[in-house]
Amino acid sequence: MLNIAALNERLVMFEGCGHGAWRVTSQTTLCGEPLAAVTHITMHIAPQKPIASAGWFLTGVRSNRRYESTKEKATLLTKSEGLGRPEATRGALIPIKKSSAWWELSQEERRDIFEQQSQHIAYSLNYIPAIARRLHHCRDIGGEFDFLTWFEYAPPHAKDFDDLVHYLRQTKEWEYVEREIDIRVTLD
Amino acid sequence: MLNIAALNERLVMFEGCGHGAWRVTSQTTLCGEPLAAVTHITMHIAPQKPIASAGWFLTGVRSNRRYESTKEKATLLTKSEGLGRPEATRGALIPIKKSSAWWELSQEERRDIFEQQSQHIAYSLNYIPAIARRLHHCRDIGGEFDFLTWFEYAPPHAKDFDDLVHYLRQTKEWEYVEREIDIRVTLD
Repeated sequence: MLNIAALNERLVMFEGCGHGAWRVTSQTTLCGEPLAAVTHITMHIAPQKPIASAGWFLTGVRSNRRYESTKEKATLLTKSEGLGRPEATRGALIPIKKSSAWWELSQEERRDIFEQQSQHIAYSLNYIPAIARRLHHCRDIGGEFDFLTWFEYAPPHAKDFDDLVHYLRQTKEWEYVEREIDIRVTLD
Repeated sequence: MLNIAALNERLVMFEGCGHGAWRVTSQTTLCGEPLAAVTHITMHIAPQKPIASAGWFLTGVRSNRRYESTKEKATLLTKSEGLGRPEATRGALIPIKKSSAWWELSQEERRDIFEQQSQHIAYSLNYIPAIARRLHHCRDIGGEFDFLTWFEYAPPHAKDFDDLVHYLRQTKEWEYVEREIDIRVTLD
């Protein structure tokens, strides 16, 4: 019914099953319904045809940026490094769903909670470029989550990643998170 | 590949073909590639299964509001009337695609062009409640357009609608519009 072909360029599918590129080292449900446990995650970028799998798929779309100021966007683009760095052999997939109360807020109210009250961008900047990140949107494509965020970092930065997600989870913004799974992976 | 079922609640499909609920009175390509000419438009809200048609479909999703301040949102919600008013027997479907330059701007830059420079919300408020409107997003679901806006109004307000779209088309915001079709319809 939807034009999947046209969507493919920005579409990313995360496949969770019994084999794959990244080995799962932990899968923790922070809140809401769990996902079926898997041993491996594979990221399929812009798949050209349906993929057969015995596991689950989470699908998201890379889209335009929604909350950053012009200055914040420039800083992020200058400081960030991309995915796929050879040393970045640790990763995480964190699917999140926010409440309907979040989505009913105005853009102004969401930005205020996201940054003025929670410093989501300002605090995350402390961990860039060590932690690379890509956000995928799935609310409007009918996903069971709203966002799939994928992170990559080198093993010495595992503690930094713990600190970052620990910080975010005690912010005002996270009061609107009603489902969150934290899946840690390794290439080793 | 996508979970269409989960998407359905907020999904709207516009079908253009040789029969249907709304009769097309004009179909004008303002810029970009035309759409195949049709004589009727039908709006399918949250379809539960694929629809067979000899014409075209444009599909969009009702989503969260992206640009309004808290005060603007409250004013719009207070003043606006819904679709389906018995006297609102005229309508329009206006599919729009913006350029990649638009989507690469920060949220702050887009808001500045949208409202500070173009007064998209402030000017549109002059036409509410006479002109009812619903916005559907389609960029992230792979549509050939970025937005499908549906309007309904009573026949005496046809000139008001012309004034509104004429105003918007000469704004700074519209410099980023690279495809636009204006399809006027009637229930008579």
